[in-house]
Amino acid sequence: MKNILIIGCGLLGSSLVRRISKKKLAKKIFIYEKSKRNILMIKKLKLKALVTKKLNYAVSQSEFIVFCTPMSEYKKIILRINKDLTSKHKITDIGSSKLKSLNIIKKNLTKKTSWISSHPIAGSEVSGPENGKHDLFENKWCVLIKEKKTNTKFFRFLTLFWKKMGSKIISMTPEKHDKIFSITSHLPHLIAYNLVKSAQDFEKKQNYNLIKYSAGGLRDFSRIAASNEIMWRDIFFDNKINVIKAIDLFIKNLKKFKSDINSENNRLILKKLIKTKKVRTQIIKLKQDVSKPDFGRN
Amino acid sequence: MKNILIIGCGLLGSSLVRRISKKKLAKKIFIYEKSKRNILMIKKLKLKALVTKKLNYAVSQSEFIVFCTPMSEYKKIILRINKDLTSKHKITDIGSSKLKSLNIIKKNLTKKTSWISSHPIAGSEVSGPENGKHDLFENKWCVLIKEKKTNTKFFRFLTLFWKKMGSKIISMTPEKHDKIFSITSHLPHLIAYNLVKSAQDFEKKQNYNLIKYSAGGLRDFSRIAASNEIMWRDIFFDNKINVIKAIDLFIKNLKKFKSDINSENNRLILKKLIKTKKVRTQIIKLKQDVSKPDFGRN
Repeated sequence: MKNILIIGCGLLGSSLVRRISKKKLAKKIFIYEKSKRNILMIKKLKLKALVTKKLNYAVSQSEFIVFCTPMSEYKKIILRINKDLTSKHKITDIGSSKLKSLNIIKKNLTKKTSWISSHPIAGSEVSGPENGKHDLFENKWCVLIKEKKTNTKFFRFLTLFWKKMGSKIISMTPEKHDKIFSITSHLPHLIAYNLVKSAQDFEKKQNYNLIKYSAGGLRDFSRIAASNEIMWRDIFFDNKINVIKAIDLFIKNLKKFKSDINSENNRLILKKLIKTKKVRTQIIKLKQDVSKPDFGRN
Repeated sequence: MKNILIIGCGLLGSSLVRRISKKKLAKKIFIYEKSKRNILMIKKLKLKALVTKKLNYAVSQSEFIVFCTPMSEYKKIILRINKDLTSKHKITDIGSSKLKSLNIIKKNLTKKTSWISSHPIAGSEVSGPENGKHDLFENKWCVLIKEKKTNTKFFRFLTLFWKKMGSKIISMTPEKHDKIFSITSHLPHLIAYNLVKSAQDFEKKQNYNLIKYSAGGLRDFSRIAASNEIMWRDIFFDNKINVIKAIDLFIKNLKKFKSDINSENNRLILKKLIKTKKVRTQIIKLKQDVSKPDFGRN
């Protein structure tokens, strides 16, 4: 590969830069970044890449472009770079929801250029280039979006690229992607935000200092609820149909849980609590977590 | 202190045994345990304590008794040991909800003996004596329940005991305890169980293999939802009034969250997401967690 352009250099963008330069996968790596704070940080970190303000120049000089900005930025950037794009350019992104962003891409991107969407499952509650690392994607799943018209050659190229990033690859349609992640990722984050919000409301009303006692469970949710707000707003809005369905399912189950608690339905509650434990066993078996107990982190 | 009796030797009970023997705080430690599996494990672990089947004998030989069984066992055990209890005995327990269990205790325990309730905030998703450790309570909060009639001398004794276990002490009424922990602990666990249940329902309906993609959030909830089911059933039932209020507050907030997502209310959603992040900062400041990012555990 000749030159790569990373648009948006936060946690994931900077991790790509680190990995690409470490593995010497590109002649040059261009970084286009809007935030002054991030630009200063990238320079301080001495990432081996050219930070440029000339987006159009960087596009014309690069063959492969990775969008690592919040999804709400895609349209504006596409409209800005369309005139520099050719049939030789390949574009991907790392957004967490797919259907709506793909619609925006299809509607706005020049027909000359191919875009295949990626979703590496490698986030964290932290953001910013200072938190990136070259092995962020190591052994993590990366979903590649495959549709009827997907360019096979580019798909092979993208598969190879993510393998070099350390990822395990799986492909699916945007519809399936958005359904699955509404449950495994979007709903859990929303629930975490909502739980922390409820604790805040309760604290305000009761005038108790709750946070001191957060080690009993709230603590772990607060970590998830500390994730980047722009990114999550974009995800909730973009995948809102599936997210709302997930909320409805969650509320339905929670109401049943409440009524079983209220009537002290011993058999049903125990059955429920035992059944959910099985998922944990599956998760450990599939190496998505380790079985080591967590007594709080040091 | 002369002899101590630990009734129920799982995660917390065995941690007490380890700490007491390590610090040489008792002449003898008796363990009364019902589960054959746990008894075998205790012997295998060579905990420095006498495992006995003679509960009444152990009571008559001990001055200080700690109930570490599920709360649903208290009544039965109290009725069994009442005749052996004297004014010299001191009893505590480590249950996670207080009002209902204190009612059971007051109703059934012989008037000769004092019982002050404790709640060390030191649980985990694992259980059983094999997971206990001598420093489980180190730098963790331990709530002691103080009421109008609480025996001052015993209260001082209990404070000292938990300090020797490594805990930081705070006292409160059972009413305040149950309200606070309904939000910081009971609701988060219930929500985790309910989230995993919703994922299971979704998986069954859609026939997708979700668990593979659990690293995006679900994984962390599944850990919490793997906690001991008997203990949690007891907590949900015993503290049901507060737990149900917490569920109602949570559902009210979640419905508002849903409607703000549905109408793409940018300002309100961002405000909400930013505000909840502040709790995280407080939690880290209060040393209830560390700021180190979590990319998944190895």
